[in-house]
Amino acid sequence: MGSQIVTLTTDFGHEDHYVGVMKGVIAGIHPPARIIDLTHDVGPYGLLKTAFVIAQAHPFFPAETVHVVVVDPGVGTSRRPILVEAAGQHFVAPDNGVLSQVYEQTEHLVREIDAERWALKPTSNTFHGRDLFAPVAAWLAKGTPPAAFGSPVDEYVQLDPTTPALAQPGRWHGKVLNIDRFGNIVTSFPAELLGESPSDFRLAAGGIEVSKTAKAYAQAPPGAAFVITGSSGYLEVSINRESAAERGGVAIGDDVELVFRKDGRSRPLR
Amino acid sequence: MGSQIVTLTTDFGHEDHYVGVMKGVIAGIHPPARIIDLTHDVGPYGLLKTAFVIAQAHPFFPAETVHVVVVDPGVGTSRRPILVEAAGQHFVAPDNGVLSQVYEQTEHLVREIDAERWALKPTSNTFHGRDLFAPVAAWLAKGTPPAAFGSPVDEYVQLDPTTPALAQPGRWHGKVLNIDRFGNIVTSFPAELLGESPSDFRLAAGGIEVSKTAKAYAQAPPGAAFVITGSSGYLEVSINRESAAERGGVAIGDDVELVFRKDGRSRPLR
Amino acid sequence: MGSQIVTLTTDFGHEDHYVGVMKGVIAGIHPPARIIDLTHDVGPYGLLKTAFVIAQAHPFFPAETVHVVVVDPGVGTSRRPILVEAAGQHFVAPDNGVLSQVYEQTEHLVREIDAERWALKPTSNTFHGRDLFAPVAAWLAKGTPPAAFGSPVDEYVQLDPTTPALAQPGRWHGKVLNIDRFGNIVTSFPAELLGESPSDFRLAAGGIEVSKTAKAYAQAPPGAAFVITGSSGYLEVSINRESAAERGGVAIGDDVELVFRKDGRSRPLR
Repeated sequence: MGSQIVTLTTDFGHEDHYVGVMKGVIAGIHPPARIIDLTHDVGPYGLLKTAFVIAQAHPFFPAETVHVVVVDPGVGTSRRPILVEAAGQHFVAPDNGVLSQVYEQTEHLVREIDAERWALKPTSNTFHGRDLFAPVAAWLAKGTPPAAFGSPVDEYVQLDPTTPALAQPGRWHGKVLNIDRFGNIVTSFPAELLGESPSDFRLAAGGIEVSKTAKAYAQAPPGAAFVITGSSGYLEVSINRESAAERGGVAIGDDVELVFRKDGRSRPLR
Repeated sequence: MGSQIVTLTTDFGHEDHYVGVMKGVIAGIHPPARIIDLTHDVGPYGLLKTAFVIAQAHPFFPAETVHVVVVDPGVGTSRRPILVEAAGQHFVAPDNGVLSQVYEQTEHLVREIDAERWALKPTSNTFHGRDLFAPVAAWLAKGTPPAAFGSPVDEYVQLDPTTPALAQPGRWHGKVLNIDRFGNIVTSFPAELLGESPSDFRLAAGGIEVSKTAKAYAQAPPGAAFVITGSSGYLEVSINRESAAERGGVAIGDDVELVFRKDGRSRPLR
Repeated sequence: MGSQIVTLTTDFGHEDHYVGVMKGVIAGIHPPARIIDLTHDVGPYGLLKTAFVIAQAHPFFPAETVHVVVVDPGVGTSRRPILVEAAGQHFVAPDNGVLSQVYEQTEHLVREIDAERWALKPTSNTFHGRDLFAPVAAWLAKGTPPAAFGSPVDEYVQLDPTTPALAQPGRWHGKVLNIDRFGNIVTSFPAELLGESPSDFRLAAGGIEVSKTAKAYAQAPPGAAFVITGSSGYLEVSINRESAAERGGVAIGDDVELVFRKDGRSRPLR
């Protein structure tokens, strides 16, 4: 039967009943489901942040977990609802690119959900989290096989890849994948790029230029920016007890650059 | 035994241990209870917003669910704690009108809870969520019959009804029932009022006047206000990716007006 | 087997996947664990607020509950991870004083956790909530005896005691233990200090001086500050429907003073 865990990731916030109602629908269909919130507060860069959050979080959940992702500005339009099988887990989401980083990480099969068949009736035009995604997740957690929800599709929305590009020898271009609540700037540069004993480097993110690393936040003097290997395995730009993102005026999706002055890694990744 | 689901709706926010402690009390009395948060962040119009939230959310929960509603500025005064049976579910709350929209929706039986008997001892004067409402909810979820908690009462606090009034032919007066986290203005006008093919109408909410409808948020051009049938079946005033409430300076409880220039619905509701 | 309840208290906020991932790790190791959030939003005075929150909350949880407390600015440095047995419950935290008020309340045994043995591999330097504290909590909830996690230690970090000091006859010095979401100022003065029928007193907290008490928030006229016995048994300075902390410019950790003009309690506490 698998884990019966259902995770929820939305932009519904905490002021309204929207998330609670999704849980009610799930509990009504499959009472033993264990529902875990990832976040409901993905902010103004919702789609990009959500793509990062779900890609980072799912590896820490048991096989068969059902992840419901409802950041869905196109709700009620012709954008398709999809069910994705990847990494031994299930993902239920609108087809708007929100699962792009999961696609980048691992093999995956994308199905278009037959909404007519699985949605609550009547079905609203504005709240498919309640009317479609929650019921599909509950039936999945209850053991309904993925194939029952719809057929595989070959085309689906994928955002720009996050893999850094080698612009010229020793000069890498990347993106900001996340700004977390502490203001840490999570870049798309994997920690391997810097290596264990970093040579002479410079990482530029918005108004911040860094050429120092630290092993722990508290090791750095207050106010000084540093590069640290974050918990997701990417290089992060941080300031001890201060928001690096705010200091540098940096947002999710911004360009970042990593330059090695000598002997830095100059082969493309993968 | 029923669903054993207990929902929590409070104004306690997320900074303190208040909500967590209520859950500890419930889990101590009835370990299998499944606790679901509706919202703890009802904001400055707490009573009105809560009345809307609980009325909208409960229909999506299984029979026998226990809903705990603790927006309770009168805690420690003589306001009564009540247990309401309605729609096959249970509601535990202070008698301050917070269940008014549930009363409007459906038949209901209101009991006054015998606080002396059911409260934790010692009982604080400031935190009945922990000391009274949580234990009552836990014992209810555990199967204690409602009658054990107190006798029915005939009088209880009811806020002004939310049903729109026909001020003159083709001119309806209503209220703002909710502002959600996206800034959508949820009015008390049921979608039926506009009908499937809306005739020439004008909806006024604060500084916003709208005479266009949309079927989905993303269908409207950015910046233009429109009327949409919300997930609760009421007409909502929305702006794609912008807060309509902020633009119009509209708050929960404000008056709204719906005017049909010709052939609009002119019979009173119900 | 005990309660299998795991509570979480962190400063991770609600925007990121950090808390959700901790829950995934716990559910993977011990699926039946029931996870309850205390707070993830302890704010700028995180350590002091957390010390209060966990001390106030744990008495309302069943025996054997595992409390995970991760307010951990020193993550990745040599600060030790500890497991504390107290009040028939378990506490898992960094050794940075965050459990000080639990130590003050009750007998306790502190063990240093053998991180090498119990952490997920690979172990990050920045997210021990996920990599160490969550797994330890899950194994504890699953029944692993505390002794398996490490040996008792005699020295551990303890913040300044919160017991008020009698500065001179009738003049007490205390601290602000918490500012809650309503702006109530929770002092370290136990309610007994004022007694049932308070004599002539003055309580000073920042810019506020109070010499009136109230039994319930709503008993006081709007805008007037008063002293009330809070739900934790401490004297609180409150204003009906207004933030006393904001009015008085008061923060957690600030000094407060309680002065009796005549016949007030003049013996030291305990």
